[in-house]
Amino acid sequence: MLEISEIFNAAAVLKGVARKTSIIPAPKINPKVSVFLKTENLQLTGSFKLRGAYYKISQLSDEEKARGVIACSAGNHAQGVALGATHNGIKSLICLPAGAPISKIEATKGYGAEVCLVPGVYDDANARALELQKEHGYSFVHPFDDPKVIAGQGTIGLEILEQMPDVEAVVVPIGGGGLISGVAYAVKTLRPDVKVYGVQSTGAPSMAASLKEGKLCHLNDVSTIADGIAVKEPGVNTFDMCSRYVDEVVTVSDDEIAAAILALIEQQKLIAEGAGAVAVAAVMFDKLPVEGKKTVCLVSGGNIDVNTLSRVITRGLAKSGRNYTFIIDLADKPGQLSGVCRAIGDNGGNIISVTHERINTSTNINGCTIRVEVETRDPEHIEVLRRALVDGGYNVVK
Amino acid sequence: MLEISEIFNAAAVLKGVARKTSIIPAPKINPKVSVFLKTENLQLTGSFKLRGAYYKISQLSDEEKARGVIACSAGNHAQGVALGATHNGIKSLICLPAGAPISKIEATKGYGAEVCLVPGVYDDANARALELQKEHGYSFVHPFDDPKVIAGQGTIGLEILEQMPDVEAVVVPIGGGGLISGVAYAVKTLRPDVKVYGVQSTGAPSMAASLKEGKLCHLNDVSTIADGIAVKEPGVNTFDMCSRYVDEVVTVSDDEIAAAILALIEQQKLIAEGAGAVAVAAVMFDKLPVEGKKTVCLVSGGNIDVNTLSRVITRGLAKSGRNYTFIIDLADKPGQLSGVCRAIGDNGGNIISVTHERINTSTNINGCTIRVEVETRDPEHIEVLRRALVDGGYNVVK
Repeated sequence: MLEISEIFNAAAVLKGVARKTSIIPAPKINPKVSVFLKTENLQLTGSFKLRGAYYKISQLSDEEKARGVIACSAGNHAQGVALGATHNGIKSLICLPAGAPISKIEATKGYGAEVCLVPGVYDDANARALELQKEHGYSFVHPFDDPKVIAGQGTIGLEILEQMPDVEAVVVPIGGGGLISGVAYAVKTLRPDVKVYGVQSTGAPSMAASLKEGKLCHLNDVSTIADGIAVKEPGVNTFDMCSRYVDEVVTVSDDEIAAAILALIEQQKLIAEGAGAVAVAAVMFDKLPVEGKKTVCLVSGGNIDVNTLSRVITRGLAKSGRNYTFIIDLADKPGQLSGVCRAIGDNGGNIISVTHERINTSTNINGCTIRVEVETRDPEHIEVLRRALVDGGYNVVK
Repeated sequence: MLEISEIFNAAAVLKGVARKTSIIPAPKINPKVSVFLKTENLQLTGSFKLRGAYYKISQLSDEEKARGVIACSAGNHAQGVALGATHNGIKSLICLPAGAPISKIEATKGYGAEVCLVPGVYDDANARALELQKEHGYSFVHPFDDPKVIAGQGTIGLEILEQMPDVEAVVVPIGGGGLISGVAYAVKTLRPDVKVYGVQSTGAPSMAASLKEGKLCHLNDVSTIADGIAVKEPGVNTFDMCSRYVDEVVTVSDDEIAAAILALIEQQKLIAEGAGAVAVAAVMFDKLPVEGKKTVCLVSGGNIDVNTLSRVITRGLAKSGRNYTFIIDLADKPGQLSGVCRAIGDNGGNIISVTHERINTSTNINGCTIRVEVETRDPEHIEVLRRALVDGGYNVVK
């Protein structure tokens, strides 16, 4: 089992390799809580994964190092292992599912790994990695269920206690459980009075379910925008450590995660990936008993696909009334569209797109329907525009 | 004139008020340069403006403090003055143009200011602020052309020298010139060997033009996505200080600024506003003689409107091949659209929207045109999809 001395050892090994990421106040996330962010999204490779992977690799024997390492990941672990191996001067081979985003494949290669693209999904890539490991004698770097990996992640716990000695609660994302196992073990060993909470996605609650059942649960389907923590089954070690050291595990929905991502952008100027935002989401939406407490939310990573980010922002804008699509039935005669555009423009709406559909069974035969997407200031502004359109004699359907 | 002791004094006053923001390595911005970021976007209020405003207000006489302060701003200066005044326990009134984004108005109120919305544009709000100042005897807090404000911003220069003693060049955004005047004065006084460069937007190059002409130039029109530095005329003090202490001023285009914003998101997990990204843009696009040099880019603020951010991302996605809209002429018969969707889906394209236009003068009378917006991996992936559509017998117009 893990000893606290091993986490201190990991911290010494990681010194000068991993960044000691800042803890930043986030006063607006929840006015009832004193919220701070441990910004592992600003870590090298964009996530905490470098810590565990690097420490694990550094502890291999010379013979193991000579043979190289292998790992399977479609995400942050791949980049952590690649950079960890390259820094240690050894060879790494990473199996990725063939459909992985090109940006992640390129980043992994960029950190010096050889990449093996395996047709199929994650499980196929993992099976292939295990085959290759047996064939060539590589060391397998598990993404979470390995005491050395856990010790590496635990260095974040040491840093939090050092950077903020009066911390009262630490909130940590859970996928397989490696991160929280290390952090909770370090925190509870040194400061048993500090609470440690875990957060999963409602679409992938494997650790929450396992803790509830008192035994490892396997989920057949996981689905969440927090792809970095979409894990079907916790590890044996991590389940055991969470049972001992974690005070409570809660879940947050995809909508809550998206709202947390947007809040981090607007209030904190930070990019978090879905998995990186779940701790913030849990505090933001009052899932945890931390009212009035000095609470550190671990923002574990920032490697969000920009297409996903764009969708999260678009959805957030619509939800907060800063984007609206009017649907208007028009008499099909000249001048109608320009009248609509003028009513919107004169009232400070900024038109982004117009779709004009003449054939539409829901309108009368001489009519047409237009959809006008508008940038707006807030829900009240949308109402101002709606009234201007109605006052102008236009039939606003929505 | 400013003395270096005043900047040290400002640093002492700001201790415990302003955050000492981190300097973070940014190795991928330009592989030929050793790039670091001074992250003032992570400053309280989301920009450096708090420093100058707070210090200015702290140095008012008790009588002046009792009367309160006034300022005009549609952006970061408003929030800086509001929080600076509230922290000093005095009253602030901020004039904003009536069309200012609701988020900025709310943030300014949230920091404790009274807000006066003035019909018209910035110049109207500024005129009204000067009227109100005379009427009520408030102290006017200028956004840049004031030695105390400049001294406050100069504390960033002290921090850079302390946090990175081996820095070789500092790159700073310029609007009115308050930030760079303070930073350049501090850096050149203490370390004349360190280069200080300024960056403006090509759409608002008032300081660059003034330095070239050797006298203050007034621009009638300024237009840039970097609204925080869209200033028509530099200050008298700031122009003088830039003439003395700044090595060179260059400009960057809106497209370059947008690319820098996207690079900061993807590589650094940081949100910068347009003005905050110009220093990064200048280094990214080789505008400055900093090859091989340890270079700190000042990321001055992160208060970007989320609608603008969404547009910057969308544009960046299209430019890098991660979003494409196919235009396809179809025979107007059943099954055509599903065939198109299948060809795209089978090849890993993710359809975001479909617009189906039956009436279109450019197609034959039995045809129709569809526009299909697709998330793609890269330009090669777009070509794979295009070939699949052409091989399927579809007439891809674009």
